[in-house]
Amino acid sequence: MTVLYLSDPARGAVFQAAFAAALPDMPFHVGQAPDPKAVRYLVTWTAPDDLAARFPNLRLIFSVGAGVDQFDLAALPPHVGVVRMLEPGIPQQMQEYVTLATLALHRDLPAYLGQQRAGVWQAGKNLPAEERRVGVMGLGQLGQAALAALRPFGFPLAGWSRKARQIEGVACFTDLDAFLARTDLLICLLPLTAETEGILNAGLFARLPRGARLVHAGRGRQLDHAALLDALDSGQVAGAVLDVTAPEPLPANHPLWAHPRVILTPHIACQTRPGDGARHVIAAIRADLAGQPVAGLIDRIRGY
Amino acid sequence: MTVLYLSDPARGAVFQAAFAAALPDMPFHVGQAPDPKAVRYLVTWTAPDDLAARFPNLRLIFSVGAGVDQFDLAALPPHVGVVRMLEPGIPQQMQEYVTLATLALHRDLPAYLGQQRAGVWQAGKNLPAEERRVGVMGLGQLGQAALAALRPFGFPLAGWSRKARQIEGVACFTDLDAFLARTDLLICLLPLTAETEGILNAGLFARLPRGARLVHAGRGRQLDHAALLDALDSGQVAGAVLDVTAPEPLPANHPLWAHPRVILTPHIACQTRPGDGARHVIAAIRADLAGQPVAGLIDRIRGY
Repeated sequence: MTVLYLSDPARGAVFQAAFAAALPDMPFHVGQAPDPKAVRYLVTWTAPDDLAARFPNLRLIFSVGAGVDQFDLAALPPHVGVVRMLEPGIPQQMQEYVTLATLALHRDLPAYLGQQRAGVWQAGKNLPAEERRVGVMGLGQLGQAALAALRPFGFPLAGWSRKARQIEGVACFTDLDAFLARTDLLICLLPLTAETEGILNAGLFARLPRGARLVHAGRGRQLDHAALLDALDSGQVAGAVLDVTAPEPLPANHPLWAHPRVILTPHIACQTRPGDGARHVIAAIRADLAGQPVAGLIDRIRGY
Repeated sequence: MTVLYLSDPARGAVFQAAFAAALPDMPFHVGQAPDPKAVRYLVTWTAPDDLAARFPNLRLIFSVGAGVDQFDLAALPPHVGVVRMLEPGIPQQMQEYVTLATLALHRDLPAYLGQQRAGVWQAGKNLPAEERRVGVMGLGQLGQAALAALRPFGFPLAGWSRKARQIEGVACFTDLDAFLARTDLLICLLPLTAETEGILNAGLFARLPRGARLVHAGRGRQLDHAALLDALDSGQVAGAVLDVTAPEPLPANHPLWAHPRVILTPHIACQTRPGDGARHVIAAIRADLAGQPVAGLIDRIRGY
């Protein structure tokens, strides 16, 4: 019974050291396994196409990043469990990113950056936080962490998810239209699934109040890039902070690079820290060996 | 006994309506008083040079903005009290601005904005908040509000003030050298006084850890602009977010406008909201009429 790690070797070395200390009897290989039949746990970002044939005794696949959308879940053998990365640094970094992006849009940073480039000193009017209605799409671990970070600032908060939720101080919606109609600043933290692909489209933007703002830290394929450009140019959307695009990197000369009301960051909202990631995987393997529930095991039908 | 308001007329109309509702027996004039000898309370941003001669029965001057440094305190008659603006929107807006600026520097936004301009998609490494030591200069109402807003993010927090303070979760210093030596991200919220003018100078930057970052939302005259440019260019200071300069507006062609590691905003951190401002002035006048202490009355020797 072995663990195989198939991602960045420098991070793999951190995992290897953590495994040597915490699970010294569990062989841990980086890059390739001497005996593929012995591989029971795979730690990776992407799954090889011939997974079932190469690793016939595989039991769990661990994602080294925050999502599992990079896996073709339908193509994985049904008996293999998929575990997403759970480490405390991920929600913490998302809180930082979402707070930064929300305050940047709330306080008109894109306009002030444009004025700075043009050498113009002109104060706009600050809108009280009480008058900026913020809404989060996706109310899992990251959405709830983002809402908790935004709460002290006094924004009226709402959340939208497919499944009904109750979160203190947050108006929770399952009706997307009603959620969008009251949302001046929309934050997308949804997982990428068949249902959420392309969800940020012209129809959605049209249902927001005019001049709404967008923070997108979900997945690039959830966003219709051309529809966002149209909405920015018509004034329907007043500004956006984007951490994800499709594809990544965003192609050279794509108009989002230079749009004056867009702040674009290169998918840096959350980065798994290898030490914390290793602790999560070790705890999950220990739980699995003890026949206990594995934290982060996803519902393969739902996709997250 | 009358009140004279000498600032922006549109805001003055909001004050006038509030006074009519709350203190209907107190005459309130915007722009000029029919009988200057009757003026007991003056609400203004700047004090006229011939104040004592024009308003011989003046008792209190109210600043319409957050500071009182625009007054030449030594030139005011000694019996006239000076009251700073206290309204809840000011610390709230400062919390937003300081959190935005701190997270922008913590998460390397100036570098990512430069990459965006250049069309470069390249992720840097996120530093955990636990490894970014934040320090606030000035521990009055605004400094304490800023620290409270930053606390949930997990930065090790410190504060510096002339007078010893105790704030939960904050290492409080009166020794400036010791404070600077542990501060990776410095936030200046000091009032402008003779002691703080020019305090952000080459000697101070040299005592910070190399690559420190600066948020300046105090007053422009506290900053030696040339010293900051030198520190940015040598790498001693890695980035800055500035809301204040001297003079304001910053002159055209000043190198801070176009510096790639500087974000510059046109003194918009806090704006007094006239309705809230009027409520503060009305409460203060009521207290004064009742012989009670006036909230916001400054120590004219100390200057804040």
